[in-house]
Amino acid sequence: MVQKFWWVNHKQTHKQEIEGGYLWSPKREASGARSQYYENMRLANPGDVVLSYADGKIRFAGVVSDLAVSAPKPSEFGGVGSNWSAEGWLLPVVWKELPKTVTPKNMLARIAPFLPAKYSPIRASNAHGNQKAYLTEIGKQLFDEVARDGDFVATKTELSVGAGADFTNRQEDALQTHIQNDTSLSETEKEQLVRARKGQGQFRNNVSKVEVGCRVTGIINPTLLVASHIKPWRSCVTGNERLDGNNGLLLAPHVDHLFDRGLITFDENGNLLISVHLTEQELEQLGLRSGVVQAPKPFNANQQAYLEYHRQEIFLG
Amino acid sequence: MVQKFWWVNHKQTHKQEIEGGYLWSPKREASGARSQYYENMRLANPGDVVLSYADGKIRFAGVVSDLAVSAPKPSEFGGVGSNWSAEGWLLPVVWKELPKTVTPKNMLARIAPFLPAKYSPIRASNAHGNQKAYLTEIGKQLFDEVARDGDFVATKTELSVGAGADFTNRQEDALQTHIQNDTSLSETEKEQLVRARKGQGQFRNNVSKVEVGCRVTGIINPTLLVASHIKPWRSCVTGNERLDGNNGLLLAPHVDHLFDRGLITFDENGNLLISVHLTEQELEQLGLRSGVVQAPKPFNANQQAYLEYHRQEIFLG
Repeated sequence: MVQKFWWVNHKQTHKQEIEGGYLWSPKREASGARSQYYENMRLANPGDVVLSYADGKIRFAGVVSDLAVSAPKPSEFGGVGSNWSAEGWLLPVVWKELPKTVTPKNMLARIAPFLPAKYSPIRASNAHGNQKAYLTEIGKQLFDEVARDGDFVATKTELSVGAGADFTNRQEDALQTHIQNDTSLSETEKEQLVRARKGQGQFRNNVSKVEVGCRVTGIINPTLLVASHIKPWRSCVTGNERLDGNNGLLLAPHVDHLFDRGLITFDENGNLLISVHLTEQELEQLGLRSGVVQAPKPFNANQQAYLEYHRQEIFLG
Repeated sequence: MVQKFWWVNHKQTHKQEIEGGYLWSPKREASGARSQYYENMRLANPGDVVLSYADGKIRFAGVVSDLAVSAPKPSEFGGVGSNWSAEGWLLPVVWKELPKTVTPKNMLARIAPFLPAKYSPIRASNAHGNQKAYLTEIGKQLFDEVARDGDFVATKTELSVGAGADFTNRQEDALQTHIQNDTSLSETEKEQLVRARKGQGQFRNNVSKVEVGCRVTGIINPTLLVASHIKPWRSCVTGNERLDGNNGLLLAPHVDHLFDRGLITFDENGNLLISVHLTEQELEQLGLRSGVVQAPKPFNANQQAYLEYHRQEIFLG
């Protein structure tokens, strides 16, 4: 995906969204009409950059860490936006404070030519924030001017690295907040979900240090990958085994399912082994024909031990 | 898959396994050696037929309802098989009591020619059960002789129908038992897992009355399908919506993931709509190229209402 640049005017909810590591918008205007500013929440991609504008200043920039998801209005908004719908779009963002605060009004002459003609976040005439604007797309030129004044580097690589580091934990924290605020869940359910997600978060982080993508399909987009235990969670004797990054693979969801059910495994050289229970037709339907499956990649010694367990104890042969 | 016929000698654990709706075996002999009788647990397919032999009689026959899974020894075995390993193979089976009890010894002359040369469940000379035998494959001819004496019909279709009716509930019950007996789980975790599985069980049953297989990949094998909510569970206002079969689709695991994350949806005519967030390469890697995706099938009016919600509130466009 091509990296996009966004600008958010979020004066009212600025504090909560920066602290929570997300953006949240209603899905429609109070009238029920669609708004491009809210539709943009659906369009933002992981890796996109967002400038946070509030009270005439840009103090934070962030990297989108996952696709938007339908989610209830955060309870920490309190009375703010009481006319907003209860369900909206939640976009996880990893925010960073800028070394220098940027004041767009002070650089208006320089940036005015780069403000978008439609859906501009601020007025080219006086730099006042546009009343209705929330999330709006800006060009690379405008972004670069802000980055220069804010004294931060924003190459794709550098931001990706920054985002990669706390990607999962920050995202988990934001989602945890939203689980806590979901009034449709009992306290027991919340605790369970938070615990389950936390585990996947930490485990997934550990696996991501060992594996780069799905060994079967070649997929590397984190949104399309699951951190799958090699030796199953319930068979692990220690918490250490349960969280060991060497005891995991990043797999596409259907590959994870097959691996979990013992319908596929890997030999010592990384070749995919397929159970007799899967028919040729099913492999075809699952898009796992021989020509599509990735070339085998070697495993490290710790992974080998877990894989031996999987071949012996889980694989259905 | 070709339907196979199996015979199990399970004198010691007969009662527990019939009542529990499963077969359970260790993975190896006490010596650590592999046993073909235990390896057969991995080879049994959903739809295969099993004859239950204990105390010289065949009183029950069953249909395998899912593939085997690695699982701890059922606590209801009590002191039986104390030398067996703690982890073994669990094979879900839907058992039915035969109209007439079959006594192999009384029909020995007739069935002796059909007993397998290797791994025979009983001796051709005196009809005594072979000491080491557990699950063993038999031929159609032997099975037919038993079915004749037992007065039950065992065409593939008829048994499939029988199995289809309580497929999920019986399987869930068996798995529930095993969750309860899993000492690695806290009481809270058990309760949560049982509740989650129960919900999927009942919901899945309801969905299966409306949908026959994955609308995208064409997969119909239940082991490869997930019952996926159209309007998400947490967005449902009533328990009725959460369990409504019209609020679900049977989808392959990767298709379920994409649908759940709003990366695909369906239009009113059943055509697959793909989000701008998915690249051509990712669709290729997921095996969802246009030539592979199934032709659209119409939805009923109740499904249409839920799908309208999915398009408006979940799909990322």
